[in-house]
Amino acid sequence: MNGRLPHGGFAVNRMGRLTLDGYDLAEIAERFGTPLYVVSEERLKRNYEELVEAFKTHYTGEAIIAYAVKANFTLAIIRVLALKGAWAETFTGPELHMALTAGVRPERILLTGACRVEAEFREALEAGVGLIVVDFPQELHRLEKVAGELGVEARVLIRVNPAMRVPTHPSIATGVRGAKFGVDIPSGQALKVFEEALALNWVKVLGIHTHIGSKIMKVKPFVEAASRLVGFVEELNGKLGFKPEYLDLGGGFGVPYKPEEFEKPFDLNLLARRVSRVITSGFKRLGLGLPKLIFEPGRRLVADAEILLARVLGVKETPTGKFIFLDASTNHLSPVLLVDQYYEMVLVNKADMEPSETVSFAGPLCFTKDIIAVNRRMPKIETGDLIAILSVGAYCKSSYMMHNAQPKPPTVMLSKHGIEMVQRGETLNDLTARDFIPPRLYHASAEPS
Amino acid sequence: MNGRLPHGGFAVNRMGRLTLDGYDLAEIAERFGTPLYVVSEERLKRNYEELVEAFKTHYTGEAIIAYAVKANFTLAIIRVLALKGAWAETFTGPELHMALTAGVRPERILLTGACRVEAEFREALEAGVGLIVVDFPQELHRLEKVAGELGVEARVLIRVNPAMRVPTHPSIATGVRGAKFGVDIPSGQALKVFEEALALNWVKVLGIHTHIGSKIMKVKPFVEAASRLVGFVEELNGKLGFKPEYLDLGGGFGVPYKPEEFEKPFDLNLLARRVSRVITSGFKRLGLGLPKLIFEPGRRLVADAEILLARVLGVKETPTGKFIFLDASTNHLSPVLLVDQYYEMVLVNKADMEPSETVSFAGPLCFTKDIIAVNRRMPKIETGDLIAILSVGAYCKSSYMMHNAQPKPPTVMLSKHGIEMVQRGETLNDLTARDFIPPRLYHASAEPS
Repeated sequence: MNGRLPHGGFAVNRMGRLTLDGYDLAEIAERFGTPLYVVSEERLKRNYEELVEAFKTHYTGEAIIAYAVKANFTLAIIRVLALKGAWAETFTGPELHMALTAGVRPERILLTGACRVEAEFREALEAGVGLIVVDFPQELHRLEKVAGELGVEARVLIRVNPAMRVPTHPSIATGVRGAKFGVDIPSGQALKVFEEALALNWVKVLGIHTHIGSKIMKVKPFVEAASRLVGFVEELNGKLGFKPEYLDLGGGFGVPYKPEEFEKPFDLNLLARRVSRVITSGFKRLGLGLPKLIFEPGRRLVADAEILLARVLGVKETPTGKFIFLDASTNHLSPVLLVDQYYEMVLVNKADMEPSETVSFAGPLCFTKDIIAVNRRMPKIETGDLIAILSVGAYCKSSYMMHNAQPKPPTVMLSKHGIEMVQRGETLNDLTARDFIPPRLYHASAEPS
Repeated sequence: MNGRLPHGGFAVNRMGRLTLDGYDLAEIAERFGTPLYVVSEERLKRNYEELVEAFKTHYTGEAIIAYAVKANFTLAIIRVLALKGAWAETFTGPELHMALTAGVRPERILLTGACRVEAEFREALEAGVGLIVVDFPQELHRLEKVAGELGVEARVLIRVNPAMRVPTHPSIATGVRGAKFGVDIPSGQALKVFEEALALNWVKVLGIHTHIGSKIMKVKPFVEAASRLVGFVEELNGKLGFKPEYLDLGGGFGVPYKPEEFEKPFDLNLLARRVSRVITSGFKRLGLGLPKLIFEPGRRLVADAEILLARVLGVKETPTGKFIFLDASTNHLSPVLLVDQYYEMVLVNKADMEPSETVSFAGPLCFTKDIIAVNRRMPKIETGDLIAILSVGAYCKSSYMMHNAQPKPPTVMLSKHGIEMVQRGETLNDLTARDFIPPRLYHASAEPS
């Protein structure tokens, strides 16, 4: 076996080929072409169930899992999770549109965001979203104005910044001093905003929101965030008499990408137990009823449910090493460029072979850093071989980077119902569909050169 | 005046507003909405003319300017340059499709690329492209096979890697040791490939191609590359009797982004003079006729011809500083994330005011590094103000990063013919146009939670 596998949905069949949920991935690539995203419906459901079970076991209050659609907004994926009971967390108007299009019930949509204008709040209130997370005072007053104009109550959480140290890549640490998100607790800014908010007529403040960052592999920062929120609730309750109905701890649960991490994934049960304990004991001490907890996982639900299949276009020997050129590129895997993300690679059609050489995987794009993976131990790879790039479900398709006009690949979903195309690939005509060449230019003749 | 201006197309009008080619940018934003790309046809033409003039003055042979469409493949932009006489340099099949759609004559298209499969070479030969640049031996033999099958001659340049030190960001240095592009000169690999190529039947080798990197502000590396090519020509001529008809030096000419650079742009005349001298004297010494020179500028032609207009959504005070939230984001400016690119910002509707405070500009996206510009001196900015982000013509639209499902903005072109919409914005429906939710999922009911 080359490459290590992140979960039990993968196996190697009699022909030595990698399978997912029993489907031969080489056959799928043959039928649908490459590059191709393949998503497992079964794994999506199981990831959701694990989260729900963990909190059912450890928290006596209600726990809501809101899928952060920004991680992967393929509509069929949102739909599968919504059918299981997940809420949707949407950050922008277009994400809200997608959740609604996928049939998520508006009252199960949580609208977060960084700096919404009146039109966006109006759209959200008209759609009847369940909760709106407000980021800072200017937003609060805009929302009050719009809600008043529409004559509807806005159900609101206020986002606070606990200004912690968060152990992750600085690009994706949010609950840190100096970040653009939320109102600051330590300086007293957050308390002041709650005081303002509680005096409003149309904004009904129901709770507190925070989000500390992404790709966090340890439970401890979440426990610390929960603890800081309890401390803030004590202040809010003591000074303003506020009793939160919701406590939203955001998302950010990491997933294993490297083989050595597969054995020690993020411990959901430990998270549920420790966070529940902090909140339950804290609220008991304050004499408050247990809040509804909200979590907004994105990566944790989708990352390991989707893979990218890529064909080997060629093998290039250079004085400094061997490049395997794929028809996939860093366009499809922008986290490689943004946070130096590692993705595990498996040689699908020779999955039973042991590694024998060291290679780097390159995409066909016109820049030097279009390198997908460096110095990987693989069996001997030949042109035409098929590679599976694992755990690409989060922030790959939804953070597509466009270089060299490479069109977006299609996505198929695997389930007991068969292989279904759930997103077609982009065509060449899609790429130019928004362009107009003014007739005066199109009918002109070139200047003699 | 706040912000400094990169070229004479910009001015400030009587109302204290920034104008481009005489058009009031605040009026344009009012009419077309924001975010909005605005491109100057005049500036595109002038940039092309400057390049052509420089080589007309200093090179007695022919010099071909091939626009690297990867920099910005808005069809109207390609069209404007093609009408001036520019060739198009396309790196992939989709870029070739765009150049053809924009009406570039096939014989004026140069097809470069990293690892093409047979189908891509077939497409290029059937379209009748002028020249194909081959990257390494496997490509060479694929092209020979396809050309033979079609019975057409393939007019070819071979890409060599001079393995130099290139003074630019490592992500975009290409002609360096260990890069994935081209065949290596120092190790003798390049000579061997030419020997192989010259023995083929359908591949007709006409010259040598190299490209050393992007955003290079000094002339010297290009002179060094030219000098290394002349050295290689001497070897090729001496050992194989090869006489190159074309010498392609690639692109990579930098443009000024920071105000302090506006006074000392890349010196095109110095480039033309020094490169011409090296090649002319070298070829004379070898007793060879002057080659046609090819250059593949992208950034140099389009960067300062396009700006992005953005509206101020809100102003947020935090304990660590003041954030100005814009409706533009790092999605529209991915070089900020990829190479820490600086873009100059001007307060359009108060362009005559002096700076008075220090602010950072943030986009509305859900990650911490969605920060467009840090610690800029600006006049006091209020919600609703209009910001021009300058020199975004290269690798912004064409390297669009999709986060939070933010749709792509439209582009208008300014000319003496008026303001023309040349690319419409993406709609919400565009974002979901490729999705299918299988009926079995769409008609299912959610599980009780």
